[in-house]
Amino acid sequence: MGFLSERSRYAQNAIEMEDATAEALAKKGMKIIELNRGDPTYYINTPKYIINAYKRALDENKTHYSRAEGIKELTEAISKRYKHLYNIDFDEDKVIVTQGVSEALSILNSALINDGDKAVLFRPYYPPYMPYLKMNGGEAVLESYDESNNWNIHIENLKKSLKNIKNEGKINRVKYMLITNPNNPTGTVMDKSVLEEIVDIANEYNIMLVSDEIYDEIIFNNAKFTSVSKLAKGIPHIIFNGMSKDYDATGFRIGYAIIPEEDKKSIEIRKKFYDYAMVRVSSNTPAEYAAAEAIGNIKVHEREVKKLVKQISERVNFTYKLLSENKYMSIVKPNSAYYLFPKVFIEELGFKRDVDFVDKLLKEKGIQTVWGSAFGSPSHIRIVALAPNNLLEEAIIKINDFCKEHKK
Amino acid sequence: MGFLSERSRYAQNAIEMEDATAEALAKKGMKIIELNRGDPTYYINTPKYIINAYKRALDENKTHYSRAEGIKELTEAISKRYKHLYNIDFDEDKVIVTQGVSEALSILNSALINDGDKAVLFRPYYPPYMPYLKMNGGEAVLESYDESNNWNIHIENLKKSLKNIKNEGKINRVKYMLITNPNNPTGTVMDKSVLEEIVDIANEYNIMLVSDEIYDEIIFNNAKFTSVSKLAKGIPHIIFNGMSKDYDATGFRIGYAIIPEEDKKSIEIRKKFYDYAMVRVSSNTPAEYAAAEAIGNIKVHEREVKKLVKQISERVNFTYKLLSENKYMSIVKPNSAYYLFPKVFIEELGFKRDVDFVDKLLKEKGIQTVWGSAFGSPSHIRIVALAPNNLLEEAIIKINDFCKEHKK
Repeated sequence: MGFLSERSRYAQNAIEMEDATAEALAKKGMKIIELNRGDPTYYINTPKYIINAYKRALDENKTHYSRAEGIKELTEAISKRYKHLYNIDFDEDKVIVTQGVSEALSILNSALINDGDKAVLFRPYYPPYMPYLKMNGGEAVLESYDESNNWNIHIENLKKSLKNIKNEGKINRVKYMLITNPNNPTGTVMDKSVLEEIVDIANEYNIMLVSDEIYDEIIFNNAKFTSVSKLAKGIPHIIFNGMSKDYDATGFRIGYAIIPEEDKKSIEIRKKFYDYAMVRVSSNTPAEYAAAEAIGNIKVHEREVKKLVKQISERVNFTYKLLSENKYMSIVKPNSAYYLFPKVFIEELGFKRDVDFVDKLLKEKGIQTVWGSAFGSPSHIRIVALAPNNLLEEAIIKINDFCKEHKK
Repeated sequence: MGFLSERSRYAQNAIEMEDATAEALAKKGMKIIELNRGDPTYYINTPKYIINAYKRALDENKTHYSRAEGIKELTEAISKRYKHLYNIDFDEDKVIVTQGVSEALSILNSALINDGDKAVLFRPYYPPYMPYLKMNGGEAVLESYDESNNWNIHIENLKKSLKNIKNEGKINRVKYMLITNPNNPTGTVMDKSVLEEIVDIANEYNIMLVSDEIYDEIIFNNAKFTSVSKLAKGIPHIIFNGMSKDYDATGFRIGYAIIPEEDKKSIEIRKKFYDYAMVRVSSNTPAEYAAAEAIGNIKVHEREVKKLVKQISERVNFTYKLLSENKYMSIVKPNSAYYLFPKVFIEELGFKRDVDFVDKLLKEKGIQTVWGSAFGSPSHIRIVALAPNNLLEEAIIKINDFCKEHKK
């Protein structure tokens, strides 16, 4: 046995895996356009009212440890947010503030997964879901979003799969089912009817349903988003959300988990979230105060998020339009978040693996994207449409040229 | 098997375990004096130059994700700090910035510990060391700091123990040895000669030496602190440190790990720290910029830390003096950090367990401390001497009264 643990081999994040290559190319003078990181704040500043609240917290010397589960002002603001947006009621003590959704994922898996336990994930998935599951000894039951059905979940496949697991007597080893809605990397929202079926299935098989809804206000092209919190009343579920996307504050590292129900499982896992929070003592305190104002000041937020969504939707739609001209890709039109996840006909372009396509695209054209296999869906690439239009245009033209040049 | 994982039962932190009781008592009108949390920033504000740097980062919209391993300005400032304080050289890329030392502990254990692996810890230990080890399936080789020798390490015991493990053929299962110097909860610093022996032992048995030095500038009463980084040149080691204590900024959640060497183990674990950092994407970005200024501006820091240490040492010495009058305790005089860790003659006072002593002290007198068994050292309590002197005086008088009242 080596020095490092077995589990540590799962600690990787493909989204940043080409950063070193990109940096080296940039040093040699190549212009790199990064379309790999989903960081709105890099291009669009965090709203001023949030920055001001953050500075106020600093002026008021709120730089000590905070309550492990998050300051009450913030958990109360979160409770208010859900009442306002989705007309659902839960007390502030149903919320645990985490250092980004990353920490919520880490706690979820550490608290639930024994060696050999399972969790239902759907391809394409947000890459860090997998290391947090596998590092804790878990195995993924890999189901799929259906590209041919606007990336909604393949309900029949899911039912079949769970039925089989139940017949094998292992259904109690399936600890949670994790969906991402709005979706990263596809940029789509799920239909309400599909979500209702998911909630029913979770209930039928007694599986904790976890819904990562971090993009829940970045919706456009007339799409309709439905929160699981609205559909799963009385059924064990957890909602993940945070400051990064709707509030355009990725660098704050403030996320949260809402565990609103009072069944035995919900009570157990909520208590454990508190325990884990206590072990690491506190999140960033002034950022929590900023988040409390950001979320609590609904009126200003609504104005700001409207502006944000307008900018993002223009960039996404612009990118979609340019990319649609590429004959070597097919692409489901996004209506949320800021990702495009085209299927690339890599074999027609002489590539065996999407990794090679992405690597070559970076080295030849300076365009950094992420390979679909990092999300569990090979032969795709993820493109982040957050750069200003002139950069996006340059990047997509280069991608389109790259494909033409490699056509067999 | 239940819903929660086996490992999750280790997720607990005794330091905050009586918070709910204390809150309930306060609600009933009892005056509570909290001597349980080591949070200097709660009583003494973070220096203005650091607050200003933090606000500047916010004004400059530095609220996007940062480099996973920490902004270069910060890792460079840390490198400069060690050159200045300890005259040692390492490049900035030997540093990984973490969300507090908590995250560094989490990564250390996840990256190194397989089921049944071991780590050498010393009683009394900082409580979270244990959950991070055990949640990853590890077992502690529990050695001791020696109360009768100013809390220096029992070197002979340590040697005997490692020799036995080696004879059993299991020495390669001992993944690291973790010391805390200056020490929490004892408030003492280790002798240089003892540290030299520890470094030799780590080298002899080929065990990664980890030194948590988060209080390295909070030294008083003419004590001399020696950093392991200064003694372990050429020997695999990791230094943990951060913003919380020397810079009086607990709520920033900025810690770091330095892995300066170039042996195989050091290279492997350093790479893994980067990988884990990438999975959770980023620390709090504006706090990193504040930390870069805090650490990099050595001149202003030296002035500030001098003031801080003066205030803290006065409070600690004042508390020590009052507590020395208590005949039901014995106490090693602290010369660092802000903890006192008296041995309490609990049986003379009619208690079987330190937990009962602490609980009763809270309920009868409103004084919140932490039981020694949380640190692996029963029959002790930890007292945090950070409150203003009038509060400390009131608290210690109440503790002394409590003991007199319970004398058998």
